[in-house]
Amino acid sequence: MSLHAKIGVVGATGAVGSVTLALLAERGYDDVRAFASSRSAGTRVPFGDRELLVEEATPAALGARDLDLCLFSVGTTASRELVPAASAGGALCVDKSSAYRLVDGCPLVVPEVNGERAHDALDGDRIVANPNCCTIPLTCVLRPLHEAAGLLRVRVATYQSVSGAGARRMSALAAEPPEQHDLVMDWRWEGDESDEEAKLRAETRKILELPELPISATCVRVPVMIGHSEAVWVELERPLEPDEATAVFRDAPGVRVLELPDFPTPQDAAGQDEVLVGRIRRDGASPNGLALYLSCDNLRKGASLNAIQIAELLLGALAPTAR
Amino acid sequence: MSLHAKIGVVGATGAVGSVTLALLAERGYDDVRAFASSRSAGTRVPFGDRELLVEEATPAALGARDLDLCLFSVGTTASRELVPAASAGGALCVDKSSAYRLVDGCPLVVPEVNGERAHDALDGDRIVANPNCCTIPLTCVLRPLHEAAGLLRVRVATYQSVSGAGARRMSALAAEPPEQHDLVMDWRWEGDESDEEAKLRAETRKILELPELPISATCVRVPVMIGHSEAVWVELERPLEPDEATAVFRDAPGVRVLELPDFPTPQDAAGQDEVLVGRIRRDGASPNGLALYLSCDNLRKGASLNAIQIAELLLGALAPTAR
Repeated sequence: MSLHAKIGVVGATGAVGSVTLALLAERGYDDVRAFASSRSAGTRVPFGDRELLVEEATPAALGARDLDLCLFSVGTTASRELVPAASAGGALCVDKSSAYRLVDGCPLVVPEVNGERAHDALDGDRIVANPNCCTIPLTCVLRPLHEAAGLLRVRVATYQSVSGAGARRMSALAAEPPEQHDLVMDWRWEGDESDEEAKLRAETRKILELPELPISATCVRVPVMIGHSEAVWVELERPLEPDEATAVFRDAPGVRVLELPDFPTPQDAAGQDEVLVGRIRRDGASPNGLALYLSCDNLRKGASLNAIQIAELLLGALAPTAR
Repeated sequence: MSLHAKIGVVGATGAVGSVTLALLAERGYDDVRAFASSRSAGTRVPFGDRELLVEEATPAALGARDLDLCLFSVGTTASRELVPAASAGGALCVDKSSAYRLVDGCPLVVPEVNGERAHDALDGDRIVANPNCCTIPLTCVLRPLHEAAGLLRVRVATYQSVSGAGARRMSALAAEPPEQHDLVMDWRWEGDESDEEAKLRAETRKILELPELPISATCVRVPVMIGHSEAVWVELERPLEPDEATAVFRDAPGVRVLELPDFPTPQDAAGQDEVLVGRIRRDGASPNGLALYLSCDNLRKGASLNAIQIAELLLGALAPTAR
């Protein structure tokens, strides 16, 4: 039944929106509409073996009471305008911008980590926020570590692909002479850190329900098309040997463990649903410390797939069989 | 007088060797010979506004007692064969491979950090080792921090350019479609870490003369041509505010501080002699913790420039005025 849910994909022409459409088609959803800004309205986008006409994303169109669910991958300003309209029109909303992530009462959900929180939205304003593309894989590995041995402190250095900055940045990288490739921190500065670093901390704390967890992040954009990687150091309350951590990850949903000589790479993560985790070893610089390294497809699990998984939790809860 | 020293550049056709020749020409050295493997012998390499004929690097050629100084940028195996011959022939040797770095009694030198150690070689077998291209900039920032507040622990994630892996890898990156760019760990595995990570720890300990300093490193190769970057977390014995650390770095030789909205990048570091350091801030995950980020031209300060600075310390010590 939920495969026939009326779904709107808002921001359908962007890097994340196009992957969202591909994943929805793969999963068998058939009643999908594409929305984008006036600039793209009237064009067509691929959807499985057919095409969808792109409609203009306006509060009126999204609030017209003919959508069961809307998946938003637009900027924060556009989300703030469009999401309330869609919600008021009766659609369940999954928003991938940062507009609602830290709003009290709005669930911020990684299904493998805190999927049960998605249902809270059904009693509220029916909006679920999708975390930042670095937060999602990080919480997928931190949650099982916390359950096994208690998290005390987290440090993370990111290696984020340009697709995280949108389709135009992908084209720019493709056109750039390789000797001009650079590492950048293309975020807004908030005090002494980037808003990306602040988001990674605040969102991770909210999802893990550890509001005081010390997290220090350095976020860096690297000249890779798809796939975010993270070098992570954790300090734990109780000792956890690397082989015990490996066993914990083998049982963790959404995580795939690689062991040397294999290690996670963006190329291996791209197109995969799972977070790849490897290089699990002692951090010789702290007593109960572990170091590890992860890669994740930032357009799939880091964005579109996670949002669809949230949508499916919501649709499942609404389906007659689940009531 | 030392500008007329007879200098041999061994490995003159490689990524580091060619920068070494350019820097020697810039600095006014005039009696320079180029050596390389039999494959490149007979070709010519640029040296200022002229060219040098490349001679074959053999133990006999380098040990012929007509060189005052040899700068080696060849592989470890070749260094083990050639350096002792040059040394026996009377040349001072600065070796950029890992062959001698951890040998007891062989100085491992970053002139701004432990330049006084170079002189030890004059009483020994006249070989000075040049550290790994990530160790050099790291020690340039760790030494002043240690003097100011005492180092307790170090964690570092590297972003290393392909030129660190040689000229052929640079050509491969230039020829690679950008959608194939990846992050790799192209080093040998030693237990649960790469030999690069092990080197970074062991060499940093030796240079700082802190044999027990806990250092945990994750080394990653990124698709950038020139310039290594490092995200660094330090824990200190005594409190040091970010503005105090900034003041410490302003007084540190070989280091240039960038403040937001500026931050170090490989593109800005390339062609520069200094280690760029920025993003100096509290590490909220530890009491006396600081986070920072650096970029450095791995072919210049990370290799050729550092070796030439070592050579100039040695030549200065040998010059009649300095005796």
